[in-house]
Amino acid sequence: MARIVQKYGGTSVGDVDRIKNVANRIKAFRDAGNELVVVVSARAGVTNELIARAKAVNPNPSEREMDQLLSIGEQETIALTAMALHGVGVPAVSYTGAQAGIFTDKVHTKAKIKTINAKPLEKDLKAGNVIIVAGFQGIDEAGQITTLGRGGSDLTAIALAAAIKADKCEIYTDVDGVYTADPRVVKDAKKLQEISYDEMLELASLGSKVMQTRSVEFAAKYGVVFEVRSSFNNNPGTIVKSEVAYMEKVVVRGVAVDKDQAKVVVSSIADKPGTAAKVFRALADANINVDMIVQNVGRGGVANLTFTVPQTETSKAQKALAAVLKEVGGEVTVDEKIAKLSVVGVGMRTHSGVAATLFDALAKASVNLELISTSEIKISVVIAKDKADEAARVAHAAFGLENL
Amino acid sequence: MARIVQKYGGTSVGDVDRIKNVANRIKAFRDAGNELVVVVSARAGVTNELIARAKAVNPNPSEREMDQLLSIGEQETIALTAMALHGVGVPAVSYTGAQAGIFTDKVHTKAKIKTINAKPLEKDLKAGNVIIVAGFQGIDEAGQITTLGRGGSDLTAIALAAAIKADKCEIYTDVDGVYTADPRVVKDAKKLQEISYDEMLELASLGSKVMQTRSVEFAAKYGVVFEVRSSFNNNPGTIVKSEVAYMEKVVVRGVAVDKDQAKVVVSSIADKPGTAAKVFRALADANINVDMIVQNVGRGGVANLTFTVPQTETSKAQKALAAVLKEVGGEVTVDEKIAKLSVVGVGMRTHSGVAATLFDALAKASVNLELISTSEIKISVVIAKDKADEAARVAHAAFGLENL
Repeated sequence: MARIVQKYGGTSVGDVDRIKNVANRIKAFRDAGNELVVVVSARAGVTNELIARAKAVNPNPSEREMDQLLSIGEQETIALTAMALHGVGVPAVSYTGAQAGIFTDKVHTKAKIKTINAKPLEKDLKAGNVIIVAGFQGIDEAGQITTLGRGGSDLTAIALAAAIKADKCEIYTDVDGVYTADPRVVKDAKKLQEISYDEMLELASLGSKVMQTRSVEFAAKYGVVFEVRSSFNNNPGTIVKSEVAYMEKVVVRGVAVDKDQAKVVVSSIADKPGTAAKVFRALADANINVDMIVQNVGRGGVANLTFTVPQTETSKAQKALAAVLKEVGGEVTVDEKIAKLSVVGVGMRTHSGVAATLFDALAKASVNLELISTSEIKISVVIAKDKADEAARVAHAAFGLENL
Repeated sequence: MARIVQKYGGTSVGDVDRIKNVANRIKAFRDAGNELVVVVSARAGVTNELIARAKAVNPNPSEREMDQLLSIGEQETIALTAMALHGVGVPAVSYTGAQAGIFTDKVHTKAKIKTINAKPLEKDLKAGNVIIVAGFQGIDEAGQITTLGRGGSDLTAIALAAAIKADKCEIYTDVDGVYTADPRVVKDAKKLQEISYDEMLELASLGSKVMQTRSVEFAAKYGVVFEVRSSFNNNPGTIVKSEVAYMEKVVVRGVAVDKDQAKVVVSSIADKPGTAAKVFRALADANINVDMIVQNVGRGGVANLTFTVPQTETSKAQKALAAVLKEVGGEVTVDEKIAKLSVVGVGMRTHSGVAATLFDALAKASVNLELISTSEIKISVVIAKDKADEAARVAHAAFGLENL
């Protein structure tokens, strides 16, 4: 008998029939003698419908009222899932975030979990019930409903798993694990049996859209081992856990491509102390996520700053830069026809030559490198967007990932 | 400046545009210097959609889970209404039933309000906010979400008006007041300016579908004066209040027709003590609402029992009676082609001749009386259903209600 936390995403509970399917899956786990706490998201599409209705009454709805509104999406799913379980003879009780004792700070629409009071839930669990918890939501100390922002339901599951000391945490989604590359691009991409938190974090932040980084960070902090798997089949998924020794034998574990970035070049700015700081302070004040910063100094005491930003933020970035460039001089050019390719693996820490292998493979495929950035377990390069898929295949083959 | 509780029903907040209309109405009241607490229902149709989805996952959904589910309908409306108010520059805060401190017993789907802790609401009200409260819902002492059953939003408004000592309570609905008869049937029916709780109760329970009796009873118990009016125009409605002296000058204030009743005759049962008790105990045990009971004793020591039940409960009544008739003998006949016509007025208490006037008028119109039942402020008769509309017009004219 194990104590298991499961999380089913919006497509897994997208309609009445899928909710019944999920109920049958849960029943099978319970019939096998397990204790179950199940976190569910809103039905796919519901959150967007609610946002559209909110925008129709007010283009700039208050964040507090958005939380009051959006939390009903998950509240619908918990009740329907509990009813479906009753229908197949499984005792079940639904819990809103507030009822589950998920206390957060008071930052509406992107609250952070502070503590979980799992006592009522533990009591219902010991009484033999399956507990269905609304993901994505909590309550602050003043009794206000809060939501956790993107990827919030994963976070609910992982935080609950930590709070009730679950033996397993299973994140059911519409992909059946973490792959060495996007299988739609690299035909012989392999599903990874295991991956470390650090590798998952690099992959999550690099366009492998399985999970948001914050949930992985939370799991790493509290040592919650979790498995990413599909609710539409019974295949084993990918287990995400602390790094273990044998992982290091494998140098590279995945190739990720992010086509949603843009390259920004700020050229001909004065090369003196504080200039770069002013540029990035302006971007930070505008809440723009900057990555892959490179500076090089040209002739005549002028410098170029190059970095990437999400494509959705390029116009905001240009606006923020316009003000500061009046002061420090220079000009801005933006290139959206780029992609960021990264290879990730904890084994890089102890193996040299990874960069050389990657650059060599890309050169042979005539892929030009516009920017390079490295970390302990990752090498990223910016390349032309129309070369990205080919580059992913070449890199995947260069590290022998098809044999992983 | 007055402190006003308003309640808007499901059709008044049926879509985004109507919610904006309601926001503008509220703004006008607030701009006039009033303090406002506004109770809203779920958008028309939403509750039925949720029930359909529940039945699709489980034909017999648990009542606790139904409450978790149905409460989201109002929670959507409060958030959207608050957002719409922000959009027209009015500070507003939405409250779920739990946040509004509406504590109920633990009887899911038909909970009774026990207490209201209005302190948080009072604080927000004093800070200048319009308070938007979800109707129909509350919370029990264990933190479980409850709903109040049919007419629950009216009850929320009236209970809040009592709790915060409101100066006025306005129930906005899709009719613009209480009429002396159904205007679709009796063309010269008049809207009543005022009506007593007792009269409203008799009319509410007699097919004048403006409000459920429990809300009127609650208002009478706590002396909450309320007005029933339309949210689609600015006409004054009908004020419901304690009986005042001048009301008694008017003998009859309304004619109500209920076509949803059936007449049940239990004939040829033994005329001995305890027989009738057994019959009505069986009906009570089956939760059947019985009205207008008449017993007459025929020849040979056998008796007939006649009464009315809601048409929706005739088959349940027949089932309940079958068991008891095995014991006491007799047989059951059901007639659904009947209607109940009632004239109501507190003035009857001190005026004689009302029955004579009614019976005389109906006789002249060749309407046969199948059953008669009277209370202090009401006379009801059972007549053929196809004569009901004509009878309503005749009775309305006999008491001069067109001149009220």
